[in-house]
Amino acid sequence: MRTYSSVPFSRVSVTGPFWHERLETVLTRTIPSQLRMLEKWDIRESIRLPQPVPPLTQPRGPNGFTVQVFWDSDIGKWIEAAAYALSHRRDEEVEREIESMIDDLERAQAPDGYLNCWYLEREPENRWTNLRDNHELYNAGHLLEGAVAYFHATGRDRFLRIMERFVDHIAATFGSGPGQKRGYPGHQELELALIRAWHATGQRKYLDLATYFIDERGTRPGGVHYFDEEARARGEDPKDYWFADSGYEYSQAHLPVREQTKVVGHAVRAMYMYAAMADLAAEHDDAALKAACEALWRDVTERRMYVTGGFGPSERNEGFTRDYDLPNDTAYAETCASVAMIFWAARMLNLDLDGHYADMLELALYNNALAGLSLDGEHYFYDNKLESDGSHTRWAWHRCPCCTMNVSRLVASVGGYVYGLADTEVAVHLYGGSGTTLPVAGGQVTLRETSNYPWDGRIRVEVAPEGAGRFTLSLRIPGWCQGAAARVNGDAVPVVPERGYLRITRAWAPGDVVELDLPMPAERLHAHPDVRQDAGRVALRRGPLVYCVEERDQDVPLHRLRLDDGAPLLARHEPALLGGITVIEGTARAAEAKAWGSALYRTEPAPERPATLIGVPYYAWANRGPNPMQVWLRQ
Amino acid sequence: MRTYSSVPFSRVSVTGPFWHERLETVLTRTIPSQLRMLEKWDIRESIRLPQPVPPLTQPRGPNGFTVQVFWDSDIGKWIEAAAYALSHRRDEEVEREIESMIDDLERAQAPDGYLNCWYLEREPENRWTNLRDNHELYNAGHLLEGAVAYFHATGRDRFLRIMERFVDHIAATFGSGPGQKRGYPGHQELELALIRAWHATGQRKYLDLATYFIDERGTRPGGVHYFDEEARARGEDPKDYWFADSGYEYSQAHLPVREQTKVVGHAVRAMYMYAAMADLAAEHDDAALKAACEALWRDVTERRMYVTGGFGPSERNEGFTRDYDLPNDTAYAETCASVAMIFWAARMLNLDLDGHYADMLELALYNNALAGLSLDGEHYFYDNKLESDGSHTRWAWHRCPCCTMNVSRLVASVGGYVYGLADTEVAVHLYGGSGTTLPVAGGQVTLRETSNYPWDGRIRVEVAPEGAGRFTLSLRIPGWCQGAAARVNGDAVPVVPERGYLRITRAWAPGDVVELDLPMPAERLHAHPDVRQDAGRVALRRGPLVYCVEERDQDVPLHRLRLDDGAPLLARHEPALLGGITVIEGTARAAEAKAWGSALYRTEPAPERPATLIGVPYYAWANRGPNPMQVWLRQ
Repeated sequence: MRTYSSVPFSRVSVTGPFWHERLETVLTRTIPSQLRMLEKWDIRESIRLPQPVPPLTQPRGPNGFTVQVFWDSDIGKWIEAAAYALSHRRDEEVEREIESMIDDLERAQAPDGYLNCWYLEREPENRWTNLRDNHELYNAGHLLEGAVAYFHATGRDRFLRIMERFVDHIAATFGSGPGQKRGYPGHQELELALIRAWHATGQRKYLDLATYFIDERGTRPGGVHYFDEEARARGEDPKDYWFADSGYEYSQAHLPVREQTKVVGHAVRAMYMYAAMADLAAEHDDAALKAACEALWRDVTERRMYVTGGFGPSERNEGFTRDYDLPNDTAYAETCASVAMIFWAARMLNLDLDGHYADMLELALYNNALAGLSLDGEHYFYDNKLESDGSHTRWAWHRCPCCTMNVSRLVASVGGYVYGLADTEVAVHLYGGSGTTLPVAGGQVTLRETSNYPWDGRIRVEVAPEGAGRFTLSLRIPGWCQGAAARVNGDAVPVVPERGYLRITRAWAPGDVVELDLPMPAERLHAHPDVRQDAGRVALRRGPLVYCVEERDQDVPLHRLRLDDGAPLLARHEPALLGGITVIEGTARAAEAKAWGSALYRTEPAPERPATLIGVPYYAWANRGPNPMQVWLRQ
Repeated sequence: MRTYSSVPFSRVSVTGPFWHERLETVLTRTIPSQLRMLEKWDIRESIRLPQPVPPLTQPRGPNGFTVQVFWDSDIGKWIEAAAYALSHRRDEEVEREIESMIDDLERAQAPDGYLNCWYLEREPENRWTNLRDNHELYNAGHLLEGAVAYFHATGRDRFLRIMERFVDHIAATFGSGPGQKRGYPGHQELELALIRAWHATGQRKYLDLATYFIDERGTRPGGVHYFDEEARARGEDPKDYWFADSGYEYSQAHLPVREQTKVVGHAVRAMYMYAAMADLAAEHDDAALKAACEALWRDVTERRMYVTGGFGPSERNEGFTRDYDLPNDTAYAETCASVAMIFWAARMLNLDLDGHYADMLELALYNNALAGLSLDGEHYFYDNKLESDGSHTRWAWHRCPCCTMNVSRLVASVGGYVYGLADTEVAVHLYGGSGTTLPVAGGQVTLRETSNYPWDGRIRVEVAPEGAGRFTLSLRIPGWCQGAAARVNGDAVPVVPERGYLRITRAWAPGDVVELDLPMPAERLHAHPDVRQDAGRVALRRGPLVYCVEERDQDVPLHRLRLDDGAPLLARHEPALLGGITVIEGTARAAEAKAWGSALYRTEPAPERPATLIGVPYYAWANRGPNPMQVWLRQ
């Protein structure tokens, strides 16, 4: 069923200025500073199982929960991101640190393979008693992903073997066989990790366990939900659960996954699960699983997504609420959820080369996900609001630091989202300057894409097969683009995209060049009339970037500005601003307060004067101190 | 300094249809149903000091606080409201119930006069140790107001004598004399009650204690704040306080009251205190206190007030935030705060006959305060939002029922806000049908005002002095009114209002009639350009009423509607709707979703079709089940 496969980032060079800068920042600043933060916040120390057991660093909340239970995952994610950095360039000091972490994990591991530092240190008697809340399997997933990444980067398999012992223990504990617990992760993630391990090792047991977790989820064998059974075994009433009102929608365990059609609950859990479902649909040619993915995809992209590619409006459940409910100033839109959407979209694209998936991937990548990391590479957004009175500012760290390392592992591996490969086809999903050499149609083909994307839509792709080779080059024509033009070796070719891709099949020869011209005028976007929070407002977009306005770029307070209806929008490159960006300039009106008088309300509206509105890319906001911001502008 | 005095409601007959209906509902339905609720929620029982001490009905919150500490105030407020009902018509059953409550309070009272059922029952050793949080003096205030009201209604003074013993105990305990505690109420209210007791009894000690509380508040004798000293005496760190960040702004104890110029903190506490300050400014001819009231008045009415006459946008502190910060869908705008504003405005109006004060009184009365009570008289709003997605609905009761009896005591005494009296002047502040007989310029004058206000601005005032009498009749020309006309005995007189009042001085004779014509077209209101939440929006007003739109009156979802800019607004009376109201009808545009397609965002706006928008008075909303609502409409 899977027609394309992704080309790993380690085989892709990221050469274009936009992503090269972000990648370098992540490699040189973000990943090292994250290690310092893991140390400072006691996370690094926690896997040494310190004795005596120290008091909690993160106190328990009103429901008795502490985020400290998932510190193992932060270790796993940092190792994963750092291993990606090693794939770019080896670094003895980083390798020593990772080896030291592996030493600690190896020492911590129980003789039976069990490995969870929280439980081993603080409540060894309670292992596997609360999958619903305590992230045991989630932690295992992130550690396993770290182990796979470190193996790929260095060839060293000690961590992978440690994790194999743990996975063997998990597989012995959970399953539908006699004496096994029919449990599955309360927070999905391990499923994705297991599929990575399956691809890395070729060992079927990883795939089998992932398949079990997805198939078992939300079933009620004998009429009993596993999370209920587990709660009763702890002596608790299953109804004493924070999200009992929605019947396990919170963790997408309310229904068997193939019966799910509405995107509900915690957004990150949802997106990780959908990504794993897409993987398994491909592995098993599972049409029902693919159909569920497609239904969920339609639901989320057509009714439950921010214009910035953010997901999950509500802080309460860190997730989804109702169709078309997309508040701006209280948007949650967790960075992790957009990173996870990128994982899902990449997998859908491999199942089915449809530009819709690549459009979504690009939207989430360039906007909500990238906004999660500051330009200096050391400050973060956990939640990505679309409107702020200036009080929403970046964190140097977060008590729940999941997003910090999700964005570093994403950027460190961004090259992995650029190309798709089939037997006799290569697809280019993302532009911005990259190169790779791939086996296509029996020979090696080198591709080199150069452009100043996302600032400019003129793309040049050099195609260099070893010899002459006949294959299809599929170049994505983004959904946001109207009037794309293409030339092969200088000769215009008609642009008739098939599901979002211009497919050029020919006998390619060294020196062949395809040029693509993707017009990217600055545009207004309107939301569906049922998104009440955006009624009467427009968002600005240029190419893949959604824009916002920050008060410091305007000459009046933001709330007094409205964009002129229908007036032209100009794009202007500002090389010195925010690391070099293209701004959008529009004519606007500013309400005047000077002559208003002392009344708070009156029958005459305020007079307006002409003004200019300046928009900057959303990903770049909040890099200049506290500052009111809006994505959706009054017209 | 006080130039006018209010005419007590017991001397005013409320004859007009609008208030007559509200008053009858409160007398026949609200007050009896509130007694049932006091019984059902254990509040009635709590003053019997039940043994053994029952578990809490209202569990403590995360900060250790339970609203149960101020149940005495609910008893006091119900007695006050019920006593007002008795002033309208005596009722043996109600009087027996009140007598039984007084029996309980008398039994509960300690030999030294102390009377607080929470402390007497649950922690007698802790009396007077936490004025900051525990409402001991606030409770005393509401009980005292109940005692004064019951004395006025029945002439029976047993309750008043009980409360006098308690006040004597308070006055002995608190003060600046040797051995006294320099405390004052954490929640202001007692000050107002003491001034009422002073007026009822003529005993100066009540006035003196009120004066002490206001003068002492926010001072730091010896550099120490009383609430800090008290916290340390409890063995607590004063910084362990919910609102420590704002330095006692929460209870307006951050500065001596004469130095306060910004309206801050908990809105109800603020408004009760400002009302007491206005009273004391009049009692003592205290220019500094009056100037503080005026500065605070300007601050709140020019920068911190909802268009509906609601106060305090934030749930966090039940109070004020920043200038021009007036969110609609999260508005707190507590019913009690508007009731308290009415108290304050009435006092300012007596200090200074200025229509600004009466305009404010009327605005709060007809809109935010009245919205607190359902048309059936048995459902309530505690917080009064200006926009709702349909989830904000009325309560049959509230775990903190302060608002329920604030609105019943207000409506039961609404006649008391109609007239102002000076030696040779009578002022009519409110219209709507009323009558009274007053001593003016040495004789008795009967006034009878008839109108269908607030639906119609044609007012007829019959002036019937006992004989011929020369005095000034001041008729309010509302601030919202343009082009008022007046006739005396059919002859037009010029309308040149002096600070909001048309003053007619003449020798009045029986049979004299003044007719006033107050045009009340439906109008758009605009908010100050710095109220960001209302930018690009308008509110509808007609006469004293602010309107809203409820989704059930429209033929499309509310969020799809926008009012046509500048199109005429029509007023139409609907006798069968919501107890008989005038609706406002405007031409509008409705965004069409039918042909929108599957995209959530697109570059083309939705087409619009002509539509009609129907507005209903804000006070009448949420009487027909859950229903989206907006006050501020897109244009």
